[in-house]
Amino acid sequence: MSKLRLKISMSLDGFVAGPNQSVENPLGIGGMRIHEWAFALEAWRAQHGLEGGEVNESAQVMKESVENLGATIMGRNMFGGHPGPWDPNKPWNGWWGEDPPYHHPVFVLTHHPRETLVLEGGNSFTFVTDGIESALEQAQRAARGKDVSLAGGAKAAQQYLKADLVDEMELSIAPTLLGSGERLFEGLGDNLHGLELVRTVAAPDVIHLKFARQ
Amino acid sequence: MSKLRLKISMSLDGFVAGPNQSVENPLGIGGMRIHEWAFALEAWRAQHGLEGGEVNESAQVMKESVENLGATIMGRNMFGGHPGPWDPNKPWNGWWGEDPPYHHPVFVLTHHPRETLVLEGGNSFTFVTDGIESALEQAQRAARGKDVSLAGGAKAAQQYLKADLVDEMELSIAPTLLGSGERLFEGLGDNLHGLELVRTVAAPDVIHLKFARQ
Repeated sequence: MSKLRLKISMSLDGFVAGPNQSVENPLGIGGMRIHEWAFALEAWRAQHGLEGGEVNESAQVMKESVENLGATIMGRNMFGGHPGPWDPNKPWNGWWGEDPPYHHPVFVLTHHPRETLVLEGGNSFTFVTDGIESALEQAQRAARGKDVSLAGGAKAAQQYLKADLVDEMELSIAPTLLGSGERLFEGLGDNLHGLELVRTVAAPDVIHLKFARQ
Repeated sequence: MSKLRLKISMSLDGFVAGPNQSVENPLGIGGMRIHEWAFALEAWRAQHGLEGGEVNESAQVMKESVENLGATIMGRNMFGGHPGPWDPNKPWNGWWGEDPPYHHPVFVLTHHPRETLVLEGGNSFTFVTDGIESALEQAQRAARGKDVSLAGGAKAAQQYLKADLVDEMELSIAPTLLGSGERLFEGLGDNLHGLELVRTVAAPDVIHLKFARQ
């Protein structure tokens, strides 16, 4: 069965992005800090055409997190912080440039219709305006039996969690505070919607908690 | 040197107590859930006169957390949820009963003066009205070279963290959501005030993160 797998980094005080997010600073002030554990990895650097980097306990978690994925779902803000309807005169590609790191179909949750954007390297962005279930169905079809990655941000994650549609969650907690910004666990009430902790990996500058539907 | 050591359990969404705290329900709705890992331990049960229980990765963390302690500091709410000035006609002992589990001097942060309460088993509660530094000085003197435990709640923890006075923090994260209640990391800005992660212990129903001043 094709699973929906949420992978997200969070600060110790619960934020997945810092305050004052913008197109220039998509993760908000300080938001890069919760991803530092990843940027330091050889695996991450290689993915982005860079040499060097560390091999540590996070490497296996990162490897698993990209295995067997056939499609990705993300929120509008994660695609690009561009507010309001799409401007047909501005061929906005978010901040992913011409060759995004996905290499499979990406489905963007938005209220504003737009034609599918096809880029290099097997990347495409399809804009879904009829809700999270529709996006999941389209993504699962596109994934052809592989799993679907839920890439964030917070609001997209919350919607799928609330609907009990997340099958796995790899939550990477960075031992740092952001103080304000966008919280992951908000509006979800007092339960994890069927997810239970199944694995903990301690690594430099991060703790990876894997949750699965039991 | 006598260290100030904060030990506190927190939910995945950052709460150290649930909503609607009261004298009857000091941890708020659902608040017991973040302490379940401890209640299950043989070490905790023995401390409270109960038989049985588990021995797992949390046992060593719990053992360390009570070693070399000579005094405890806690907030007014943790001593007992009794609001307003102390009623001299009501010999309120908080919810600790006649034989609290401390067996050393406890200092309670409060705005309302009250005489020291001496109970069985080496327990005493001294009410400190002149601020957190004064409470720490008194506790360190009483501890006679041993460390001082900062037992909570959230507000007391925040005050000491903000003043850079916490030397160690053992943060036990329960993989559960409370949804609302009292947050540990609030008003602290975007830094851990000198504390850095030095150890992670994964145990059933909890992850223990130890921070120390570097």
